[in-house]
Amino acid sequence: MSANSQTRSLAEIAAKLRDGTLRSSDLLLQATARHDATEPHLNAYRTWCGDRARKQAGAVDTLLATGIDLGPLMGVPVSVKDLFGVPGLPTYAGTDAAFPADREVSGPVVGAVLAQSGIVTGKTHTVEFAFGGLGTNPHAGTPVNPWSAPDAPRAPGGSSAGAGVSLAQGSALLALGTDTAGSVRIPAALTGQTALKITHGRWSLDGIVPLSPSLDTPGLLARSIADLAFAFAAIDPQRPEVPANGAVTGLRIGVIQNTVWDDIDPSIAENTRAALQMLEKSGASLTQVTLACVDEVLAIFRAGGLAAPELRAFLDRNFPERIARLDPTVMARVQAADDVSAAEYLQRAASLAHCGRKAAEVFDIVDVLVSPTVPITAPRLADLADGETYRRANMMALRNTALVNLFGWCAVTLPTGLDAHGIPSGLQIIAPPMQEARLLAAAVAVERVIGSGPEMLGAAPLSNTTNNPPLTNRRPHETV
Amino acid sequence: MSANSQTRSLAEIAAKLRDGTLRSSDLLLQATARHDATEPHLNAYRTWCGDRARKQAGAVDTLLATGIDLGPLMGVPVSVKDLFGVPGLPTYAGTDAAFPADREVSGPVVGAVLAQSGIVTGKTHTVEFAFGGLGTNPHAGTPVNPWSAPDAPRAPGGSSAGAGVSLAQGSALLALGTDTAGSVRIPAALTGQTALKITHGRWSLDGIVPLSPSLDTPGLLARSIADLAFAFAAIDPQRPEVPANGAVTGLRIGVIQNTVWDDIDPSIAENTRAALQMLEKSGASLTQVTLACVDEVLAIFRAGGLAAPELRAFLDRNFPERIARLDPTVMARVQAADDVSAAEYLQRAASLAHCGRKAAEVFDIVDVLVSPTVPITAPRLADLADGETYRRANMMALRNTALVNLFGWCAVTLPTGLDAHGIPSGLQIIAPPMQEARLLAAAVAVERVIGSGPEMLGAAPLSNTTNNPPLTNRRPHETV
Repeated sequence: MSANSQTRSLAEIAAKLRDGTLRSSDLLLQATARHDATEPHLNAYRTWCGDRARKQAGAVDTLLATGIDLGPLMGVPVSVKDLFGVPGLPTYAGTDAAFPADREVSGPVVGAVLAQSGIVTGKTHTVEFAFGGLGTNPHAGTPVNPWSAPDAPRAPGGSSAGAGVSLAQGSALLALGTDTAGSVRIPAALTGQTALKITHGRWSLDGIVPLSPSLDTPGLLARSIADLAFAFAAIDPQRPEVPANGAVTGLRIGVIQNTVWDDIDPSIAENTRAALQMLEKSGASLTQVTLACVDEVLAIFRAGGLAAPELRAFLDRNFPERIARLDPTVMARVQAADDVSAAEYLQRAASLAHCGRKAAEVFDIVDVLVSPTVPITAPRLADLADGETYRRANMMALRNTALVNLFGWCAVTLPTGLDAHGIPSGLQIIAPPMQEARLLAAAVAVERVIGSGPEMLGAAPLSNTTNNPPLTNRRPHETV
Repeated sequence: MSANSQTRSLAEIAAKLRDGTLRSSDLLLQATARHDATEPHLNAYRTWCGDRARKQAGAVDTLLATGIDLGPLMGVPVSVKDLFGVPGLPTYAGTDAAFPADREVSGPVVGAVLAQSGIVTGKTHTVEFAFGGLGTNPHAGTPVNPWSAPDAPRAPGGSSAGAGVSLAQGSALLALGTDTAGSVRIPAALTGQTALKITHGRWSLDGIVPLSPSLDTPGLLARSIADLAFAFAAIDPQRPEVPANGAVTGLRIGVIQNTVWDDIDPSIAENTRAALQMLEKSGASLTQVTLACVDEVLAIFRAGGLAAPELRAFLDRNFPERIARLDPTVMARVQAADDVSAAEYLQRAASLAHCGRKAAEVFDIVDVLVSPTVPITAPRLADLADGETYRRANMMALRNTALVNLFGWCAVTLPTGLDAHGIPSGLQIIAPPMQEARLLAAAVAVERVIGSGPEMLGAAPLSNTTNNPPLTNRRPHETV
């Protein structure tokens, strides 16, 4: 195996696994080496199962060598957010104690990975019950953003906090996460990866510890949009074809004007505008659009939305004894839900449904919408100890992504460069409900214009086992 | 047309309309005569549109005569509960004022009737927002149970209060209702008709004023189970075949033992047992079963269930000005919803889902469940002026039917005879979710054994335009 296997696309890796020029065991050896060298700094995993994974990879290699093909993800190292049940691995959901064994049962999404003999490298850290956008976790330690300076660690983004880090680290080539208000897109954006948030209801939530069943979605993080498209097609029950050869010429892009640029870090705005200019030069048609209902849905979101009451009900019914032990930043929002009446909750749900329909009228004149994914840089972990700082940074981190969930749409993020703090910034591309295949086709074309993460950003400094890449490195890191 | 067309089944009528031996105009003339003679007593309709209906019938006759067949319900007089939007007719939903015109738009259920040129005779009275099982309405006057003595009028059952009366009256041969806790089965049972409550989610609720979207179902009332099967097959989008030639031999009937017989009127219990004995003699296999979770779901129901918060939210959001003008019995429950928190509401929903799955395990050993439909006779309207009497009678009337909604199942009711007060009693037959076709096939077989309403009960005294049938008449009333 060549040293740069990890920089290959999943499609190339799948081909090489099948023509005998690459072994799953080698992928897992490399993943383990990356993990072992950087995990003490980065803390991506709640449970690492490298030994088990390497044994499975060996078995997969035997099967592959005898011509057995269990599916596109066969032999690919996949990290799994610790909200998903995986047989044989404990589920903590970011809490201080493992859940009963019935939470180790896999649902359809993990089931699809396992059925194809995708190799689970371990369970990645999550914000407790996925209720936060920065990635913090006081119980198990917050993963460190691999792009931050060693002496001033920054947040990895969340709630799928370990998922983005696992990809930057190189311990996995695909990561399963969940997204209720931005929880795959934020960590992907802040760690230089890509992510897909699917339409609510498209994939089953079975086997996933809930935050807010009305809005929860399983999601994917990968190193490139091309990999996301590959994995989406492998996992989605409809097995859709995602055209990979489209161009941005004629793509009607609506650039959201209201709210999403407010209080944005200037360097993030600059990266976003530069990306949009490249798209326009390549033939995309850019239109400035004002999105309806934004203030209304964000007011609902800031008041706790549907998630706070839904998590409260789940805890009251299933784990009342855990409430007193919650992360204080989570507990504050869970307790605030007590003041929400049933009628208020139902009115919120009705408002969101109404607003989603109204706002979607914009798709009559554009194919996709875009916004900066996260308007702020990854906060320093030291600053987040202050509750009010946490609260404000959390709301800012979630704002642009939460809109997509609240409106009922689907979206991806892909990197646009490094911001003034050396942290990656992301472009969010948004499509109407159930248009994932068209969204991914457009995003693949966008990625071919503005570059994929590894090409654009290079490897994250702290994901590098040699520990010495320059922040300005813009070529893929070739040595492992 | 012969005088007894109205005693024919819908299938026979459909055949005669097509072979030219019966005209839709004649059906409408007869319906109008029945309506005009008895409506001053019975008060089935909020809006009667006999003139329009007769014109439509004439047009339908012209189409039929030229060989055009728009569907099974073509030319059939259908009454519509005043919760459904029907183009050109006001929607009151039992309130004191007509709704905006966007509530006159038909959804898929009314749309299916109209697309087949079923003839809408008018909008029938409902309990305000369908929130009550007895059929009372202080705004527009409560319909009178046609089986009660003229000097002591009794409740028609509700909330589809006018629907059952319209069938007993003969002004319609099929009635559209809705059922959230028994609202088609209770009025059908208390007026000697049959009704089908379908599985929640099977038919769209579009175009229907909501009570509780989590539990609301459109439903059908008809003069016989055979007619219900005919109409269900005509309206259901799947156009299912309902086998009409089955026997009860070998049918595994589970007779619910717990709760449903508590405090029952002895004559209703006797009618129910007699019907079950006939079924056993005809080869059905009867098993006594204890249903799981009954106490748990009824406790939730008595505390306002999901309906009280959901109606409260609908009113707060859409018609806050109407709350102060609500029927006091409705307002009491709407206001009580203020004390229900969002988390409590969500816990109720989770408990109901859990209980539905647990209770459904009984269907491993039986094909259908049975219970008395309504355990009490129709209360005298004079007695219901007292709030506490209303409250107790309402809960008793709803108890056995609400279980089916709370568990997420489907059910029918058919008559078992007259109780000690001369009011019809009903047998409820219950099946698992989405098993409507199998349920109706079994119920058709049951009906062939225990008799259909008209054969068993005769016409209701107050539905008789000659006003002199004996209560003990057990043959169809032949003259109009």
